[in-house]
Formats: sequence, C-alpha cells, structure tokens
Amino acid sequence: MSRNSTPDVQFDADGQLRHLLTIDGLNAETIIDILDTAESFISIGQRRIRKVPLLHGRTVVNLFFEPSTRTRTTFEIAAKRLSADVINLNASRMSTSKGESVLDTVRTLEAMHTDMFVVRDGSSGTAHLIARHVPAHVHIINAGDGRHAHPTQAMLDMFTIRQHKGAFDQLRFAIVGDILHSRVARSQIHALNILGAREVRVIGPQTLLPTEIERLGVTAFTNMDDGLSDIDVIMMLRLQLERMEGQLIPSSQEYFRLYGLTSERVARAAPDAVVMHPGPMNRGLEITSSVADGERSLILPQVTNGIAVRMSIMAKLMGSQPQTLEPEP
Amino acid sequence: MSRNSTPDVQFDADGQLRHLLTIDGLNAETIIDILDTAESFISIGQRRIRKVPLLHGRTVVNLFFEPSTRTRTTFEIAAKRLSADVINLNASRMSTSKGESVLDTVRTLEAMHTDMFVVRDGSSGTAHLIARHVPAHVHIINAGDGRHAHPTQAMLDMFTIRQHKGAFDQLRFAIVGDILHSRVARSQIHALNILGAREVRVIGPQTLLPTEIERLGVTAFTNMDDGLSDIDVIMMLRLQLERMEGQLIPSSQEYFRLYGLTSERVARAAPDAVVMHPGPMNRGLEITSSVADGERSLILPQVTNGIAVRMSIMAKLMGSQPQTLEPEP
Amino acid sequence: MSRNSTPDVQFDADGQLRHLLTIDGLNAETIIDILDTAESFISIGQRRIRKVPLLHGRTVVNLFFEPSTRTRTTFEIAAKRLSADVINLNASRMSTSKGESVLDTVRTLEAMHTDMFVVRDGSSGTAHLIARHVPAHVHIINAGDGRHAHPTQAMLDMFTIRQHKGAFDQLRFAIVGDILHSRVARSQIHALNILGAREVRVIGPQTLLPTEIERLGVTAFTNMDDGLSDIDVIMMLRLQLERMEGQLIPSSQEYFRLYGLTSERVARAAPDAVVMHPGPMNRGLEITSSVADGERSLILPQVTNGIAVRMSIMAKLMGSQPQTLEPEP
Repeated sequence: MSRNSTPDVQFDADGQLRHLLTIDGLNAETIIDILDTAESFISIGQRRIRKVPLLHGRTVVNLFFEPSTRTRTTFEIAAKRLSADVINLNASRMSTSKGESVLDTVRTLEAMHTDMFVVRDGSSGTAHLIARHVPAHVHIINAGDGRHAHPTQAMLDMFTIRQHKGAFDQLRFAIVGDILHSRVARSQIHALNILGAREVRVIGPQTLLPTEIERLGVTAFTNMDDGLSDIDVIMMLRLQLERMEGQLIPSSQEYFRLYGLTSERVARAAPDAVVMHPGPMNRGLEITSSVADGERSLILPQVTNGIAVRMSIMAKLMGSQPQTLEPEP
Repeated sequence: MSRNSTPDVQFDADGQLRHLLTIDGLNAETIIDILDTAESFISIGQRRIRKVPLLHGRTVVNLFFEPSTRTRTTFEIAAKRLSADVINLNASRMSTSKGESVLDTVRTLEAMHTDMFVVRDGSSGTAHLIARHVPAHVHIINAGDGRHAHPTQAMLDMFTIRQHKGAFDQLRFAIVGDILHSRVARSQIHALNILGAREVRVIGPQTLLPTEIERLGVTAFTNMDDGLSDIDVIMMLRLQLERMEGQLIPSSQEYFRLYGLTSERVARAAPDAVVMHPGPMNRGLEITSSVADGERSLILPQVTNGIAVRMSIMAKLMGSQPQTLEPEP
Repeated sequence: MSRNSTPDVQFDADGQLRHLLTIDGLNAETIIDILDTAESFISIGQRRIRKVPLLHGRTVVNLFFEPSTRTRTTFEIAAKRLSADVINLNASRMSTSKGESVLDTVRTLEAMHTDMFVVRDGSSGTAHLIARHVPAHVHIINAGDGRHAHPTQAMLDMFTIRQHKGAFDQLRFAIVGDILHSRVARSQIHALNILGAREVRVIGPQTLLPTEIERLGVTAFTNMDDGLSDIDVIMMLRLQLERMEGQLIPSSQEYFRLYGLTSERVARAAPDAVVMHPGPMNRGLEITSSVADGERSLILPQVTNGIAVRMSIMAKLMGSQPQTLEPEP
C-alpha cells in the first residue's frame, strides 16, 4: 500500500470525501467538518426517539473478515439511528481465500444495490483494495485493517479531545503501549498532526516501537515517567496480550510495572490531564481500575461520541446533509 | 445473591418496576398489571400489520452470554413488534472472563445510549449484577440466569393459565421434572404462590428435588401418579438429558417410565387438566407426542402468549403506556 | 418425496401460489407472472430510497439448517426492501436431530405469528415437509434442499435470460458441470422446459451425470466442445470441489481441461452466446476470469435480478399486490 496513492481513492473527482479509509491524506478542514456534523448528532442520542430518517431506504453492510462484536455494534447502532437497513456479514465464513475472492464477495454485494460497506480485516490494505473496485455509488468505511489504520477510532478520539480539552495547538499528547502493532496509534498520530497538536509522544518498550517512528512527527520514549511529563492527553492502547507474552514483552507483571497507567503515573502528567482508551481494556495490565473509572477518564464519553461520529461519517459519505435532523414522525 | 436484597433493585424510588429480574418480591398487583397489558398486545399478533410504534427509536440489546436461539428470537420479535431497534450480541465472544469484564461490556453498551438489555447467562445473579450498575434510563430483563430465575417464562405461563383456566385460587398445580436445576420451576413457584394458587406440588426423582423445597410453599412427590391426583395444571420441565444421564437419573428409559407424561398419566389428574411445557420438548422422554400435540396441551398457546407478555414487560419497564395501540401509518 | 404429490402443496384451494418449493409442477403462466412482477421491483433497486411498505408489519424468518451467508443475505435484503421484519436463525444450533424436531422448531416459530419461512437444508424435502404442516397464513420458500430444488435461483435465471435474450423458444441452453448433485440444475431444467426452451443440454463427466437424465427432457454430452455447439445460453454450475476430488473427478487440473469455461470454449457457442453462473465461482476451475468478467457474462446481473425476483416471490406468496410501489413517506 503506497502512502502516496492511498489518499486519492478517498475523494471523488469533485474533491468530496467518498470513502473513509485512512486519516493520512485528509486535511484539517475535512476532519473538522466531520467533527462539527457529529456535534449535531450528539443530541439525537439524548432524545427519547433516537432516530433520524437521513439514510432511510439505504443498506449498510458490515463486512467483517475479522470478528469484532464491539466495533460491529457501534456501526450497526449508528446506521440504524440514521434509519438505514443493516446487513451483518461474518465474512470469514464466506470466503476462505483472500484477494480475488474478497472482490467477488464485494462485487456480489454491490450488485444487490447496497450503499456502504463497513470493512474490517486482519490484513492491511483490504479496505483500500475494495474501494478501488467499487462503483461510484458505493462507499467504504475502514473499520480497521491489520496494522494500518482505524480512522473512525481516531475521529472519535479527536472529537472527544475537542469536546473536553479545546484547541489542539495548546495540547501535548502521549500515546502509550504497543505502538508497533497498533492501527489505532497510526491513525491517532496522523489526526493529531493534521489538527496541529503542540506535541505528540509515543511511549512503550523498545520492542513495541516501530523503527524510525520519528518520521511520523512524534517523539519516542521508553521511560513512561519521562514521557508523561507535562502531557495533557494520555491515550492508552490495548495490549494484545495473547499474542505477545514471552515474545515482545517479558511478562504482564513486568509490563504493568513499566507501562501500566496508575494514579501515580497520571500525577506525572499535566494537572488537568485526561485519560483515553479505545477499549476493551485489560484492567490491571495497561491501566488500573482507579484510573479507568476515575474522574480524569474519558473512556465512556469516547464510546458515546463514537456513535455520533460514525453517524456523521456515514451521512457525509453518502451525501446526506444533516440539516433535517427532525425525528421520524 | 441474597433473597432479601434482590427485589429492591427491580423498583425505582417511586415504586415503579424498572427491571424484571425475578418473580420473587413482586406483588400480585404488579404481575396482574403485566398480564392485563399483555391482553391488549394479543390482538396485535393477529393483525395484518403486527407492529405498534411504542418503542420507536429505542434500542434493545439481546445480551446472551449463554446461547439460546429460541429465547433470543422471542425477545427479538417482541421488540421489533414494538418498533424498537434490536442488536443481537452473542456476548460469549466478547468477554472471556466474567465479573468486571461483564460490567465493562455493559457500561460500553449503555454509553451507546441503548435502552434495554435482555440478559441471559449460565451463572445465577448476572442480571442482578448488571441491574445494580446501570444508570436510571437503562432497563434489564432477566432472560434466564443459571438455576436462579426465568421470570418472563413464568409470566407467560401465568398468562396462559389465566387465559385457559381462570382463577388461581381454584386451581391445583404440579411442576414435574428436574426441579433442582430449573430456573423455570423456581420462577413458576414464586408466581403461583403470589397469585394465590390453591396448591402447588413438585414431582420428580429424589435426586432432582432440592432439599427443603417445602420452604418455598410446595409439596414434594416422588411418585408421579400420586402427585398428579386432582391436579388442574400440569407444568412439565425440559430434562437437560445431556448433563444428567448416568449421574442423577438412571437412564432415559427409566426416567420416562417413572416421570414421562403419557395420556394415561394425564387421566390421573383432574378431568379437564391442561398440560404446559416451556419447550423445546424432548418427545418420548419427559412427554409423549400424543400429550404434547393433544387437546389438553397449551404448549403452542404458551409460545404465542410469550410474545405478547414480553411486549408488555418491555413497554411497562420503559414507561410506555399501551393506550396508543394504533398500528403504524 | 414423490414427484406427483409435491406440486399440490404449493397451491391453495383457489389455485393461488402459497409456497414456492419447486419449479416442477408450476405452469408457464405462474412463472411469467412472477417474472413480470419482478420487473416492477427492478426500478426500486435503482432509487435513492430502495424500500416499499408492501410487507410492513410482517415477519420473515430465514430458517437455515445449512449455513449460506450469501443466499441468506439476498433474502434478508429482499425482505427488508419490502419493509418486513427479518429474523435470522442459524437453525443447526437449535435442533440437532431432524424430522420431528424440525417440525417443533417450525410450530414454535409459527406460534409467534411469523408469516414466512425461507428454508434451506442439506436434506432433500425439508421445505416440503414444513409446508405440509404449517397453517394457511404461513408461507414457505425453498432456498435450497439437498440435491432436490433451488427454485428462486432458477426464477432469477429465467428473469435474466428473458431480460437479455428474449423468447425461450428461440434459444438453446447448456447446463455445465456437476449435474448429479445440483439442485440448481434440476430447477433450471424444469423452468426451461416449462417456458418452452428450444433445446436444453447438460454437459459434464459421466460420473456427474444422473442416469436416465434424458427423462427430464434434456440431451447429455460428455464432450464440452460438442455440447456447446450453437448454444445461446451457457449456464455454469459451481463445482463442490471439496467433496469430489479424487472420487468423482480425476483432479481439478483435469476437470478444468475438460469442462472449464474458457474464451475459446465460449467461441464454440452461438456468436452472441451469454454466460451465467449462480455463484460463488471457483475461478480457474469451472470458469476463467476472462469469461466471468467478460462482456458475455451475466453473472452480476443475475445477482441484481435475484433481489427483485425474491421480492416478487415474497410479495406474491403473501398476497400483496405490487400496484402500490410508492416509496415510504
């Protein structure tokens, strides 16, 4: 996946956002537009009738080659609140081999006149591959592809930061954990840089930091106490413990001792620092419950905002203006 | 799970039913109110358009830690007939360990502004655990927790009895089978006692009768012919054969000989006795087909009533009055 | 399953089509009526709002004893475009044994006042078995039963042929592949004969041709080049490679050499011959990508038409006239 070629696929000939595949290549205006629209969807989640007819009669397909009940649910709820019909496909059963058969699956689904595919896959580049082959009326959202990107997660993180902390150019950020394998971290770094963050640091053991990570415009720390100094927003990552122990980290106890976020560590950051986590959390491993459930935590607001941000992205890609936010009769 | 503490969780400060977790602790008025409301939903199932907009814009999550396609389907149909959006979660894949991670799952889902969780779990107390941690606007229905309770099944049974047999204080009841492991039996016993049943008996082998069962206000019989004498309503339980044979019962042939419901055994009961079963049945094990499909059987009416009763419970918990039962335009 | 008895179950006392179980026994008028109605649904798939309220308030159950994500999706989309509620049941988990327990499953679902079952099973005759036991208001669609029938696939094939090639009595057809095990081939042969096809051939290795296949009114060829001569419509079948290699076919390479559809082989057919395939394709085994994706291919139109044809069948069985095709307000 060449970095230079990917951004183009996301836009149509008129420069309108057609797919959301990666944060890389977006400009600040596009991101802020999505965040602003999401603001108008926040109130819908607080109404008694949490539905608007914007996407009535459209069909959204959750095409998950890698299972994720949690992420699938957020997109399903977002689509249903926009009154779309939702089809859930656990695609691993559909196609055993990749490449051509993924495209046959997609061509078949688009021939059924579906409107949007929310794609998740364990391999980097799948959402791009699909986006390059669909006709103009079909829209793709990347819901996570391998180690590459998870743009809707980064968008909801930016929304939550703006909601609670204000201007990005006044803020210092630290992303903590397994940077190497994290599509979330990659998308967060791009978003923070595009929005003009004052400083972005990554913190983790040397084995979990990509080489040449500084090229992405961040500073790397292996000592967490040093890295958290003066930080305004602490962005924790989920540790994929099952695939790493004994290989890239010494033990979960040792990992917690060095990189677990405790109240003591939060105290190293700026006085009003906030804590974020994409979930699901490994409590007692990368974060303590006192921090996760404490007053600095924005973890549940992230989830709430995630619905509004995904509604915003879906509506924007499908060209539905959110001016008519009246509930259905 | 202390019996004294559980009823309180079900009610809000104004004494309104907020969750349905167990029959124990409800009063007759509350049960009868649910049954009366269910009457008004029965007609909806017979219309051409079987939908009312009472819960339009609300989201019901079927959170099943223990899989049950049949039970999940009844709640899904009930919620959709009330025009709610339904999210099905096979939660066993979401969270491998219990306790804290169940609560994280629930907190995440409620942060998405969902309105109701229908919870099933193999462990007793899960629905109560969740109910004690959700905010005021979220409602919990226990769809079966371990050996503890299955209140919606008991509610639909009471509805069906009232529909076909009338006043509870005129009727003798026998619950037959594996009383020891049955959450259905526990909920039925509580409901029958609250509604003033004339007599409640339990019938089963000694190994499948709880010690001190009489404390629940029932009489225990190990001889089925004796136990069925003068009985008006025979309530069969499903035998979980796979986990019991060779341990608690001698063999399925022997079990059938001693406790299978045959036409001859039905003749031991009152002349117009009716037969109930929560399904799915083991035909030829706990019940013969001639009884199951015979004119005394209320097994299919139980299923039909189950939809109306679950609609009633959902509407009542969410505070939607069913006065407006006009179909959608 | 006696061939003589099966057609009767499909019709009610007034001669109206009540179930769609098999093509065998239908007359040309019934098939053409379904195809004509499907024409009116084609335009709905091209609208911005792809929904009509014809089946609003009805419940369609996808009862799949044999999993098939692709086929299930087509019925789910068709039902939702008609505004029905859809319940997906992977029934293999519900009932381990067949026969009586399939009927208990069905009786339970129909007691919930559902309106239509879309049934798929690995055993021939399951849809008929169910149809013979449901009450008058419940409708059955056979979505594939063993080697027996797949009538909706044949219907969408007929629609696609009529759309692209016109009158059946002017056309020669060849069905290629594993005729022996194919429910698709059986249903196609019946449909083509009923619609008065000029000639129907089947092509495949001797081991995959049923004995006495000529009784169905077709001519058998084991040499593909001979069989394709003058053919107007080439109807490929999917090879179930996993269950056949080393047994009924020598090897996949050898199969491709003898029966794979290449551009060279298409050139043996009539000058404007078209190519069809029910999907999913084994590219490089029964068909090359140059043919599958070439200008003669009708494979994607088949998928698109499949939604409209299934909408037509659902609406017709449930007695909803499609005159009111206005989108929902």
